[in-house]
Amino acid sequence: MNRSFVGYILGKIIRIEGFLMLLPCLVGLIYRESDGWYFVILSAICLIIGTLISRKKPENTVFYLKEGCLITSLSWLVLSFFGCLPFFISREIPRFEDALFETISGFTTTGASVVPRVEVLSHCTLFWRSFTHWVGGMGVLVFLLAIIPLNGGSNFNLMRAESPGPTVGKLMPKLKSTAQLLYVIYLALTLLEIVILLICRMPAFDAVTLSFGTAGTGGFGVRSDSVASYTALQQWVITIFMLLFGVNFNMYYLFLFKEFKRGLAMEEVRTYFAIVLAAVVSIVIANHGFITSLSENLRTSAFQVASIMTTTGFATADFDVWPTFCKMVLVLLMFCGGCAGSTAGGLKVSRLVIGAKTVRKELTGYIHPKSVKKIQMDQKPIEHEVVRSTNVYFLTFSTIFIISTLLLSIDKEDIVTCFTAVAATLNNVGPGLSMVGPTQNYAHFSVLSKIVMMFDMLAGRLELFPLLIMFHKGLWQDLGIGKK
Amino acid sequence: MNRSFVGYILGKIIRIEGFLMLLPCLVGLIYRESDGWYFVILSAICLIIGTLISRKKPENTVFYLKEGCLITSLSWLVLSFFGCLPFFISREIPRFEDALFETISGFTTTGASVVPRVEVLSHCTLFWRSFTHWVGGMGVLVFLLAIIPLNGGSNFNLMRAESPGPTVGKLMPKLKSTAQLLYVIYLALTLLEIVILLICRMPAFDAVTLSFGTAGTGGFGVRSDSVASYTALQQWVITIFMLLFGVNFNMYYLFLFKEFKRGLAMEEVRTYFAIVLAAVVSIVIANHGFITSLSENLRTSAFQVASIMTTTGFATADFDVWPTFCKMVLVLLMFCGGCAGSTAGGLKVSRLVIGAKTVRKELTGYIHPKSVKKIQMDQKPIEHEVVRSTNVYFLTFSTIFIISTLLLSIDKEDIVTCFTAVAATLNNVGPGLSMVGPTQNYAHFSVLSKIVMMFDMLAGRLELFPLLIMFHKGLWQDLGIGKK
Repeated sequence: MNRSFVGYILGKIIRIEGFLMLLPCLVGLIYRESDGWYFVILSAICLIIGTLISRKKPENTVFYLKEGCLITSLSWLVLSFFGCLPFFISREIPRFEDALFETISGFTTTGASVVPRVEVLSHCTLFWRSFTHWVGGMGVLVFLLAIIPLNGGSNFNLMRAESPGPTVGKLMPKLKSTAQLLYVIYLALTLLEIVILLICRMPAFDAVTLSFGTAGTGGFGVRSDSVASYTALQQWVITIFMLLFGVNFNMYYLFLFKEFKRGLAMEEVRTYFAIVLAAVVSIVIANHGFITSLSENLRTSAFQVASIMTTTGFATADFDVWPTFCKMVLVLLMFCGGCAGSTAGGLKVSRLVIGAKTVRKELTGYIHPKSVKKIQMDQKPIEHEVVRSTNVYFLTFSTIFIISTLLLSIDKEDIVTCFTAVAATLNNVGPGLSMVGPTQNYAHFSVLSKIVMMFDMLAGRLELFPLLIMFHKGLWQDLGIGKK
Repeated sequence: MNRSFVGYILGKIIRIEGFLMLLPCLVGLIYRESDGWYFVILSAICLIIGTLISRKKPENTVFYLKEGCLITSLSWLVLSFFGCLPFFISREIPRFEDALFETISGFTTTGASVVPRVEVLSHCTLFWRSFTHWVGGMGVLVFLLAIIPLNGGSNFNLMRAESPGPTVGKLMPKLKSTAQLLYVIYLALTLLEIVILLICRMPAFDAVTLSFGTAGTGGFGVRSDSVASYTALQQWVITIFMLLFGVNFNMYYLFLFKEFKRGLAMEEVRTYFAIVLAAVVSIVIANHGFITSLSENLRTSAFQVASIMTTTGFATADFDVWPTFCKMVLVLLMFCGGCAGSTAGGLKVSRLVIGAKTVRKELTGYIHPKSVKKIQMDQKPIEHEVVRSTNVYFLTFSTIFIISTLLLSIDKEDIVTCFTAVAATLNNVGPGLSMVGPTQNYAHFSVLSKIVMMFDMLAGRLELFPLLIMFHKGLWQDLGIGKK
């Protein structure tokens, strides 16, 4: 285990967070809020600690998958720890576990909040809260890879541990260029949304924060009713951008090089939009009679589908009072999630496609036992290893899901609350049903439940394994802690 | 596709059902009920039709897995069709879909009922209802294999399609002896339960029917309150026998040959009892305060755990009003199910053990990428193919589960009802929560929902694939129906 390298990267991460905190300082300055000072102080602390830790680059920069996983998990924990201090020290969120919950929810782009009325928070706090979504959306290690040069080909393990999806494609031959390109696309799309929302006459602060929430598929808003009180046009803009951020970024990459046909032919992207369409149509039909105006029905249904499927979690309606069928569709969409290689959470469309094809192949095997055709995606055969690890992913996901639900049920909440609270946190969605419905919040859970959900949010964002290996005694033996 | 052989076996099955119906005739005679005549007539019809179809043994008795699956699915459909006619013709269950639902629920040992008050049914109907559990528990094809000689080594495909669990062990070198031995153990345990219940002063009719329900892990009772109004001692006897029928029958086989140590060392059996113990202890603790008397708490908790985990479905308490944690444990036990090679439903303990070991192995792979140790069970390595098919099983199960829940949610029942109704039918349990709780029944669902649940019960009992391949166009092409 390359311990000095792990420490070096963690130092870099803390330093980056110090820089990031300068932005809310600026917001505090604009709105002349005293809370801005907390960010100034904490930014300075992060910069000092980070610089001290990472002052000396270790000679040995070779690292393997386990170091990659460990760095990723620790980075996110460290990021969340320092990130929650502004909420806690400013007493905007008085309990430490709540502040940590809110920050993890932010960075993991979940958007599950413990704050009942967000209007009472200061602008710089609200900005930081939404900004964590934007940082967490594309990933802080991807950011690190984009800016610092790392020797050795094993950096790929860092990217692999943080990037969503069953496989990680290097868009460019060099990892650094890939990471840079991803951030350029990400930034460009975010700016585009801000500009369009401004044109649609949204207040500047709201346009910026909501765009952060959309881009990271996070879901923290700046009003208690989420997005319900904005105009229909603004809601449609957000709907479209939520869907755009749920698309595999490889498509945008292909678009950049004018390969429009290949981009639009991507099987995952097509399936993604097919699911969106099917969900919107079925919910519109089921909501017919419940919502009288067709245009409102269409807008509300489309918004909720886009929001839940991309695991953003904005809401324009209390879908907890919708017919059971609608709620069931939305719950299933939570598990589905967006495309791999997007900022969305959930199981990812590509995994579901692989899963569905695995089942179909098994059935064919019963009828034609000698058939040995590999599963194909985008007309290319998928390696057995990818199929296998996808199956194991489902299994691991279910295991965490079951244990979490059981732990939450100790809380005496109802079954639907426990079930959807875990679904909403493990898939990084935000709102669930019943006591965690879109008009509710997560403040009422016990500390144990909040710890479980913090774990779930991180596990969901980091795709389970980087976080899970922290519980494997082999890792601690490697670190020299614990008996061989 | 060996069509004449498929027909031959189906004829045999109908003939067997004709013989089986003679037993309720006898009950009708004893209680002097006119309903007995329906059984006489239907028994004669089955015997005539069955004999006509199977009068000529086909020359070619070679068949493969697809024929095995097809025979299994069709056998169970034919069995259920003829089996429901007594309910329907006697007007004891006036709607055909309800009669079919009840019969499928019986044969698949689910125990989900559409009859609100079973006391109004005649003795011969009640007997037939419980007897379907006993027949379905060990399987009618296993019975067929035990009594008729079939040439060729491919009969194993029949057993494989009907027997639960990830692998089917031949206990004896000859399949016929294995099938006979299984039925001997099954019959002996059933008789033992009847005798003990009689000693505990249970009325003879109740002792026989409840023993059928226990042996098949079915759950149809002869009183509206299930088993609640029997004495504490009788409830304990049933608890113990439910648990015994959820054990892998390989253990009893080993016991027969005095290999007690090896029998008790079976990893699946140990895990099974460990789960039972953990569930009982945690539910007793959670129910403390809710049920004041400790002895009653222990008895009620143990009964419900044994009943739900072995997917029997008897009830002595309305667990739908228990604390959320208890309900959650019970719902999880539904999915767990009993051991492979028992009469219980659910995913089976051995599959969960393999699943858990797969996850652990994946984690180890992150830390020691060069480790290539195979997963072990009972100190023997498990073939990759078994691990793979177990993973695919989980995936297929989830797919059916999700689609079924979505279809049921059209019915405007609440989410918990939809979810647990599918869980209770697909795992062959019987009662669920909310509107399908232990004090409720399945009559209130729409025809569509009932069809979905009938499919689920059959899919659960036949372990998914034999039934699913009926929807694969390759099978119909093989049968000469449908375009190539």
